[in-house]
Amino acid sequence: METGVTTELYPRERLGQVRDAAAKAGLDAVLLTPGPDLRYVTGYDAKQLERLTCLVVPTGGEAFLVVPRLEVPAAQASPAGALGVELVPWDETDDPYALVAARLPRGLATVGVADRMWAVMALRFRAALPDTEQVAAGSVLRELRMRKSPAEVAALREAGEAIDRVHRRVPDILKAGRTEREVGRDIADAITAEGHAQVDFVIVGSGPNGANPHAELSDRVIRPGEPVVVDIGGTMPSGYCSDSTRNYCVGEPPADYRAYYEVLVVAQRASREAVRPGATPEAVDAAARDVIAAAGYGEHFFHRTGHGIGLESHEDPYIVAGNLEPLEPGMAFSIEPGIYPGPHGARIEDIVVCTEDGHTPMNLTDHTLKIID
Amino acid sequence: METGVTTELYPRERLGQVRDAAAKAGLDAVLLTPGPDLRYVTGYDAKQLERLTCLVVPTGGEAFLVVPRLEVPAAQASPAGALGVELVPWDETDDPYALVAARLPRGLATVGVADRMWAVMALRFRAALPDTEQVAAGSVLRELRMRKSPAEVAALREAGEAIDRVHRRVPDILKAGRTEREVGRDIADAITAEGHAQVDFVIVGSGPNGANPHAELSDRVIRPGEPVVVDIGGTMPSGYCSDSTRNYCVGEPPADYRAYYEVLVVAQRASREAVRPGATPEAVDAAARDVIAAAGYGEHFFHRTGHGIGLESHEDPYIVAGNLEPLEPGMAFSIEPGIYPGPHGARIEDIVVCTEDGHTPMNLTDHTLKIID
Repeated sequence: METGVTTELYPRERLGQVRDAAAKAGLDAVLLTPGPDLRYVTGYDAKQLERLTCLVVPTGGEAFLVVPRLEVPAAQASPAGALGVELVPWDETDDPYALVAARLPRGLATVGVADRMWAVMALRFRAALPDTEQVAAGSVLRELRMRKSPAEVAALREAGEAIDRVHRRVPDILKAGRTEREVGRDIADAITAEGHAQVDFVIVGSGPNGANPHAELSDRVIRPGEPVVVDIGGTMPSGYCSDSTRNYCVGEPPADYRAYYEVLVVAQRASREAVRPGATPEAVDAAARDVIAAAGYGEHFFHRTGHGIGLESHEDPYIVAGNLEPLEPGMAFSIEPGIYPGPHGARIEDIVVCTEDGHTPMNLTDHTLKIID
Repeated sequence: METGVTTELYPRERLGQVRDAAAKAGLDAVLLTPGPDLRYVTGYDAKQLERLTCLVVPTGGEAFLVVPRLEVPAAQASPAGALGVELVPWDETDDPYALVAARLPRGLATVGVADRMWAVMALRFRAALPDTEQVAAGSVLRELRMRKSPAEVAALREAGEAIDRVHRRVPDILKAGRTEREVGRDIADAITAEGHAQVDFVIVGSGPNGANPHAELSDRVIRPGEPVVVDIGGTMPSGYCSDSTRNYCVGEPPADYRAYYEVLVVAQRASREAVRPGATPEAVDAAARDVIAAAGYGEHFFHRTGHGIGLESHEDPYIVAGNLEPLEPGMAFSIEPGIYPGPHGARIEDIVVCTEDGHTPMNLTDHTLKIID
């Protein structure tokens, strides 16, 4: 990744923002092991290993990065190396948890641990800091990570364009007589060829498998006239993720499918149009659900309408009944209602970003059913 | 994966073994989220999602598998579906942590949580089971997982053969004038082409980068006469991992390199020959380290000699000073001493399994320096 992009996407101010937010939340320190939180704060895409790497951000002192000595070159070469944070290497026979505890002030009441820290590491920290309560650092970081900066929105748009290009290639890949697995393999290749650093998931749900929202790729042969749900996503070199679902059919689909597909198009649009600052995720979910229920398919839409997206494929905010936290400009999430009556199903998914007066979509391929010759 | 392989690799008795071991360790229950522990016990290669999937194994009752409703088809289709364990689905607006707590007996003193459980999940369990102490379930599972069954050794052998085939292709891929990244990409393709389900890591450390044991792929162009460390591994469809390091040179290497490479060959053999039941990992580590130190390169070997391998690339037992837990037949681990004096370095790595009277290697390509024309 270019250095310019890095600095804009992962600005140096993040560290101070996290410290301030942690202090405000009453935390004495934040402990971030490799994963999306560490990358968000430092730009360092560190490998998750059994050897502890941990950014320690005391709210009353200087941050430091504990690194296995073998990883020092990688840490120095990463954007974290330019942050002016002290690197604290540890050797193979050292106890890095004791090392962190010894450098922290005594008697810390509460520390935040990265949401994705391995439990075995959190338990080691608990033993090294026995009088300190642990809370999920996500309670602090989600407030920052949910509100995307313009550079983050640009990164999500770049990811959206990349996955849109893959969807435009699907009609050349998906053919009657091929198996889901064969089609899925070619789509995976297209995901990396179109600029992703990593394939996160490829769902090719043909016929009855389309009625299972999380279908695994199978050796089922796709037949003429069968609707196929294609839900795909990956991670870009920037760290930001794509995720988009479109629906294809080799030849003419059944009439009953056509009928509910049209309902789904309307429902997905209604949900997107409900997105604006101040709207609740529950209301955005209900906007799709109400259309589907009114058409008589309510029982066939049994998952939430969406999930936030950024450095993780799934993150806050979740677009689900019960989430009453108002949307704000910069929040990014999927809108993906589905209807799964069997023996087939459909789902339409776009990533959208909440703007000052509505939303802007990150995916621009249209929502018509794609009939493949 | 074939069902036959599954049943042999992931036998039904595991669940009972875990329950017995947990009871013996004084745990009241074990909570296993997606990851190697869950796969070991059930064969279920579940995706790690923000939605909780958790196998609950109470030592005094029947195990049950809590699954998001969307994942029920995948769980049923997995080997876990044949174990006779009750599936407990939860819906989008349910609290799965409360659901687990409600099904467990009141007043549990201690539960084991999967080592790789996300901290945010362990903290949710702590809130749902406020009077229950958490410990790392690895303390129980490692005792089982460290001792490989014959089927597991066969799976490691299959993985070793696959990565050996990749090493045999390296002379066709690694050429002067190509970059590390280009070579690395072709090796990654070969790793999947030779039967791995997933590429775990590809290190192509040319010239000075060979002196950094965890070098990242770079755009450095490989030049004639430069030694190159190639350390590669992946995960097979069985779930078991490969990991092997060999050393290549396009044309004639420098004389100083030849000198320490010969020392390394002797050190690696000495370490392998120290493997037998009752030997300590510390002694196996020392066997390599002593040879290297006696030849005057002691300061240039600054990492442990090896790590266990199985469903994880790195797991117990670690072959490191301070580990005095005697080796036993069935334990599988890498033997990978290195010498990194700069401006180049070398490392030789084989996976070996401890046998009744020594060791058996999983990697069979020879240890001579590979000179590429």
